[in-house]
Amino acid sequence: VIGIDNLALGRRENLSAALRHSQFSFGQFDINEIDKCLPYLRKELARAGTTTVWHLAANSDIQAGGRDPDIDLRLTFLSTYNVLKLMAQSGLRELVFASSSAIYGEHAGLLKEDSGPLLPISNYGAMKLASEGVITAAIGGGVLRRAWICRFPNVVGSRATHGVIFDFLKKLRANPKNLEVLGDGTQEKPYLHVCELVEAMVFIHKRSTEVLNCYNIAPRKGTTTVRHIAEHVVQSAAPGSIIRYAGGSRGWVGDVPRFRYSTAKLKALGWSSKLTSNAAVELAIRENLSARP
Amino acid sequence: VIGIDNLALGRRENLSAALRHSQFSFGQFDINEIDKCLPYLRKELARAGTTTVWHLAANSDIQAGGRDPDIDLRLTFLSTYNVLKLMAQSGLRELVFASSSAIYGEHAGLLKEDSGPLLPISNYGAMKLASEGVITAAIGGGVLRRAWICRFPNVVGSRATHGVIFDFLKKLRANPKNLEVLGDGTQEKPYLHVCELVEAMVFIHKRSTEVLNCYNIAPRKGTTTVRHIAEHVVQSAAPGSIIRYAGGSRGWVGDVPRFRYSTAKLKALGWSSKLTSNAAVELAIRENLSARP
Repeated sequence: VIGIDNLALGRRENLSAALRHSQFSFGQFDINEIDKCLPYLRKELARAGTTTVWHLAANSDIQAGGRDPDIDLRLTFLSTYNVLKLMAQSGLRELVFASSSAIYGEHAGLLKEDSGPLLPISNYGAMKLASEGVITAAIGGGVLRRAWICRFPNVVGSRATHGVIFDFLKKLRANPKNLEVLGDGTQEKPYLHVCELVEAMVFIHKRSTEVLNCYNIAPRKGTTTVRHIAEHVVQSAAPGSIIRYAGGSRGWVGDVPRFRYSTAKLKALGWSSKLTSNAAVELAIRENLSARP
Repeated sequence: VIGIDNLALGRRENLSAALRHSQFSFGQFDINEIDKCLPYLRKELARAGTTTVWHLAANSDIQAGGRDPDIDLRLTFLSTYNVLKLMAQSGLRELVFASSSAIYGEHAGLLKEDSGPLLPISNYGAMKLASEGVITAAIGGGVLRRAWICRFPNVVGSRATHGVIFDFLKKLRANPKNLEVLGDGTQEKPYLHVCELVEAMVFIHKRSTEVLNCYNIAPRKGTTTVRHIAEHVVQSAAPGSIIRYAGGSRGWVGDVPRFRYSTAKLKALGWSSKLTSNAAVELAIRENLSARP
């Protein structure tokens, strides 16, 4: 395994176990700087014989991309565009890609992999959709031989750098008496634990057999409301804290307040999560509490 | 009307009638050079009070973008991204956009505006899809107030700079004895005359009332095969010339060999073309013949 990351959001200590492995190497590069990445990648490929790229690099802070579209242009889209260039220049032709529910925009019904239209409401969603587009075009153009597009739901777990649990805990550390919640708390989405997400991606890569494989990934059951998360965070981190809802159906500009994923395709392939959405959220709250001061 | 174009594909003489109009001004700028466009646009807006942007700038040569993806990145996607930046910086909030059937990729059935999945097979299609994404995100983010997305079919007419009729005539001028045709001639798509396309766009802009208005534009009836086009071009330009088919179902990498558009939504709005697909092609052949040596 060859790791490349600019460590803009990640941290080197998250890789401490991997770095002790003799078959793992890590290069701290910005994937958009092809000229710097390519010599490193070629050198490591000669050693490792890796065949598949797992492209997970992106801006994962949707609100930041709402304030400055250049963030998602560069980190969420051009990162993918340049990964494809790097692959073409180094003979790699298989790609697993981290896409997102955000590409669908606001749909009333259950989201299936072939649902349309695709009308994202955030720059993040637009740049993930654009990334899917250049990936399918790379298959059409013969640059890629195979691709796996994994559309993530909301993901929670340890080592979070943003997101609702992270934000609530941060706010409660600053003021344990009150928790201000964006929106009216009825926002409701499927949450998956990051460990199960990785398990699902590996499963999809191993088992699906098409040239282009596109899967929604979500917990086997349920969604979780922001109100539920707020109440559990308060209960765990600052019992007695008063929750105040800012009101409005949407947490922030670009937020899709509710969606439900069909997991029929992933179930038919043979994978289901162990945790429900609520159980994943509750586990992630415990993990984030124990990891931070 | 304020016109901006880099004249990479267009020509100033195409604007000769418009340039004589007292209410028209033209600036030769690359839309990706915001710093140069913005002062011109602001100055002209103060005079003209224009409210709506009609963004048609793109690389229209799909094969060129297949050879070098940077062409479509810059001319088909970043052009849209930068138009949105220009609009935000100059207070313009209504956008009519020239999208394409290429965003759908290869579908067996009739293409409706809400068809999914969207899996383009060319960089051109990917960058048009990416453009739609940043436009819907700009509505989600409050940058745009309204948008009209017009998804073009194959478009023919005078002043062509590329495309099947243009290519066939060019080949016959070089060698009137034979016409080499890419693919097996069974590629089959709806063709619309450019004059009717403009009429449809104006109609959609005038009549549709949603915040986001997305329409397929196609002739009221029919599709045309490449074989039909080849035979008519030969008949008109070089009777007796022998047509040779290179074979294979696809004209070139990234080509969607056949598609059919549902025009139900556009018909319900009240617009239908006068010309069928075949009639549009035949008119365009006559126009292209009379315009060129």
